[in-house]
Amino acid sequence: MKAEIICVGTELLVGSITNTNSRFLSQKLAENAIDVYHHITVGDNEERLIECLKTAANRADIIITTGGLGPTDDDITSRAVTRFLGRERLFHEKTYRQILKRFKDRRLRVDAIAKDQCYVPAGALVLDNQKGTAPGLFCPFFYEDAPKWLVVLPGPPRELEPMFVTQALPQIFKNTGIAKQSFVVRAVRIGGLLETQVAKKVRDLLKLKPPVTVGIYAKPGNVELKIMSKASTLRAASAAADKIERVIRRRLGNSVFGVDNDTLGSSVGALLKKQRATLSTAESCTGGLVSHMLTQTPGSSAYFNGGVIAYANHIKIKILGVSRETLSSQGAVSSRVATQMAQNIKQHFSTDYGLGITGIAGPDGGTRSKPVGLVYVAVSGPKRMRCIRLNLLGTRAEIKFSAAQKALELLRQELLISSRSRAPRS
Amino acid sequence: MKAEIICVGTELLVGSITNTNSRFLSQKLAENAIDVYHHITVGDNEERLIECLKTAANRADIIITTGGLGPTDDDITSRAVTRFLGRERLFHEKTYRQILKRFKDRRLRVDAIAKDQCYVPAGALVLDNQKGTAPGLFCPFFYEDAPKWLVVLPGPPRELEPMFVTQALPQIFKNTGIAKQSFVVRAVRIGGLLETQVAKKVRDLLKLKPPVTVGIYAKPGNVELKIMSKASTLRAASAAADKIERVIRRRLGNSVFGVDNDTLGSSVGALLKKQRATLSTAESCTGGLVSHMLTQTPGSSAYFNGGVIAYANHIKIKILGVSRETLSSQGAVSSRVATQMAQNIKQHFSTDYGLGITGIAGPDGGTRSKPVGLVYVAVSGPKRMRCIRLNLLGTRAEIKFSAAQKALELLRQELLISSRSRAPRS
Repeated sequence: MKAEIICVGTELLVGSITNTNSRFLSQKLAENAIDVYHHITVGDNEERLIECLKTAANRADIIITTGGLGPTDDDITSRAVTRFLGRERLFHEKTYRQILKRFKDRRLRVDAIAKDQCYVPAGALVLDNQKGTAPGLFCPFFYEDAPKWLVVLPGPPRELEPMFVTQALPQIFKNTGIAKQSFVVRAVRIGGLLETQVAKKVRDLLKLKPPVTVGIYAKPGNVELKIMSKASTLRAASAAADKIERVIRRRLGNSVFGVDNDTLGSSVGALLKKQRATLSTAESCTGGLVSHMLTQTPGSSAYFNGGVIAYANHIKIKILGVSRETLSSQGAVSSRVATQMAQNIKQHFSTDYGLGITGIAGPDGGTRSKPVGLVYVAVSGPKRMRCIRLNLLGTRAEIKFSAAQKALELLRQELLISSRSRAPRS
Repeated sequence: MKAEIICVGTELLVGSITNTNSRFLSQKLAENAIDVYHHITVGDNEERLIECLKTAANRADIIITTGGLGPTDDDITSRAVTRFLGRERLFHEKTYRQILKRFKDRRLRVDAIAKDQCYVPAGALVLDNQKGTAPGLFCPFFYEDAPKWLVVLPGPPRELEPMFVTQALPQIFKNTGIAKQSFVVRAVRIGGLLETQVAKKVRDLLKLKPPVTVGIYAKPGNVELKIMSKASTLRAASAAADKIERVIRRRLGNSVFGVDNDTLGSSVGALLKKQRATLSTAESCTGGLVSHMLTQTPGSSAYFNGGVIAYANHIKIKILGVSRETLSSQGAVSSRVATQMAQNIKQHFSTDYGLGITGIAGPDGGTRSKPVGLVYVAVSGPKRMRCIRLNLLGTRAEIKFSAAQKALELLRQELLISSRSRAPRS
């Protein structure tokens, strides 16, 4: 079974956006043992899209289009697909009513709904769009007497991704008669190490051949080892993945902070929860980013009390109680200020841990002795204080991001140490 | 003049990497007024690549391939291209000597050089690879008696990007006789309106044909109108873009918050700077995200003093001075609490503006009367207080993001009102 992906959008052809849909769909298809031989990108042009659909129908069994389903005139996919199929365009009442209801629930003006989005080709199954207005389509058809399947998806990744996984893929299995193989994909996440350092420790695993393979990917702020395991049952695929995960954990120890959607923020959260400990933050150069990362995790209010963003020096003095003398003798970017921030926020917010971060995110404000990218991170715990000095590179946004990640990693290390020192007592 | 981009690599078809080369090349081609109608991705398969080259030669003038030039067996581009052109494969001595020298300079093992990489089709100009070993190619050819140009580039972006800009593009101009056109791309950013609402007001502009066109794109938290203007000089292209931008600004008024890389955060910052006013934030459900967005802008310390993240109720009371009575009678998620947060942070941090945000980001914590997604945002300014109630949909992360964007948009509106009421006095 072969699939071909056609992405529709002039914004892709002029380079305004990166095409992430092709990759997402290819990954999901590969995981389900469906081959992809071609990706095509074509502009918002009805004739050219029909041409691409014909070419695809000649060489693939499943054709997946993305994009061009919006309410504006340059959204041509629905019309092109209907013409390609040679079918009538019908008004889909149910979809219209669903959109109407969603608009009313959100108190949006109903006259803004383009009815045009609710027309679909006869014989197509409508895929509900939970995250937007344009519905998707699943449509079996015949091309030169051979059975083919057309999947039409919206362009925005947040609409396309759930629609493909929860609605389109199951229809593909039901309709095409592909034997569903069970597939387990698991990302093991590693903090505080470079990609090359991780690769060195798992070089043999990276060479594994199917049914179980391991890939390595550098992600912003962490390294991912992706285990892909295929078998006839989910249980067998899981068991094989579990085995590899145990090998990885044995070799990399505490550097592994989680799997799949775990983040440094959620892993810090899990450790705090386990220790029934609470946390507060005092951020300067990261400007709230650490707190934002921590509060992305549902239920974070159980251990995160809050924090202070002390951007101005007088806020560091007045709200965080950093000593005026330290500020003038050491400067705002110094280990003493970071440790005072961590210590004082902990007391002020009555938490078990306090995190203090001060640094220069740039692009201005650096000096010879304190260049842009110099950051101090301090963690004040129930028993000890630790402070590290970082020299980070990159743009302002990159320095903020790296500093936040390193701060969470330091906090994670301290939490691991304190949980070890507690263990014998319990 | 039309170009077609063919990316070669099975790793793209199985979704192991994101295709960034198509976007990069498209941007550069668009800037130089060369149209791109199709992007193709094909695997490491000689026959299928030749098929794609033929299709491309039928409909485009310039064919650009990327990838598949490495030293391993699955790197098939060089062989496929030579077969497609029907030419001899010649050993390129100069390239071999260059690679040899570079390896010696870097003290790498010379026997690792695959001589195979140094074979090129007869009649091709070799493009030097400054960042890797595989050379690129520029090759004029005839297809059904029509002149065509083939550009062969390596896959890694760090090798491809400089090679295309400094070597391939100049050859395209020299050989094809394209008059070098100037191109201006400008994104006008609009806050607080839906894509359909914006489209209604500029329907005529969206239908414009080259040399000046306008596209509409929904981005997270804003709508973008992209002006693309082509002319023989940069000045003329800019002037035409300026004219359209003025029309857009006239129709959409204050909904336009900036152009290109401007964000709601930077636009709020610019207004604060202009008024020499300062800001502080009191965030609950957004957990630091608003402050993070504000501090992404260089120089934000000039107007942003800092803030408090009050996640726990006792922090709202102790640090922000929210009244215990209000909290128990109205609940933490209420307009009274939001306004007290805004007012008190303003006083506490001695700023001109205070922003207060309280809500339920979910997925838990919602009730019938106060569902997940209910958020109150309050702005306390020098003269007045304004509070809005939001009903947001989505995941926890989406609700945090939307709430932060709406908060910045409310703040921007208040700053605009206050700058208007100041204007007559100055």
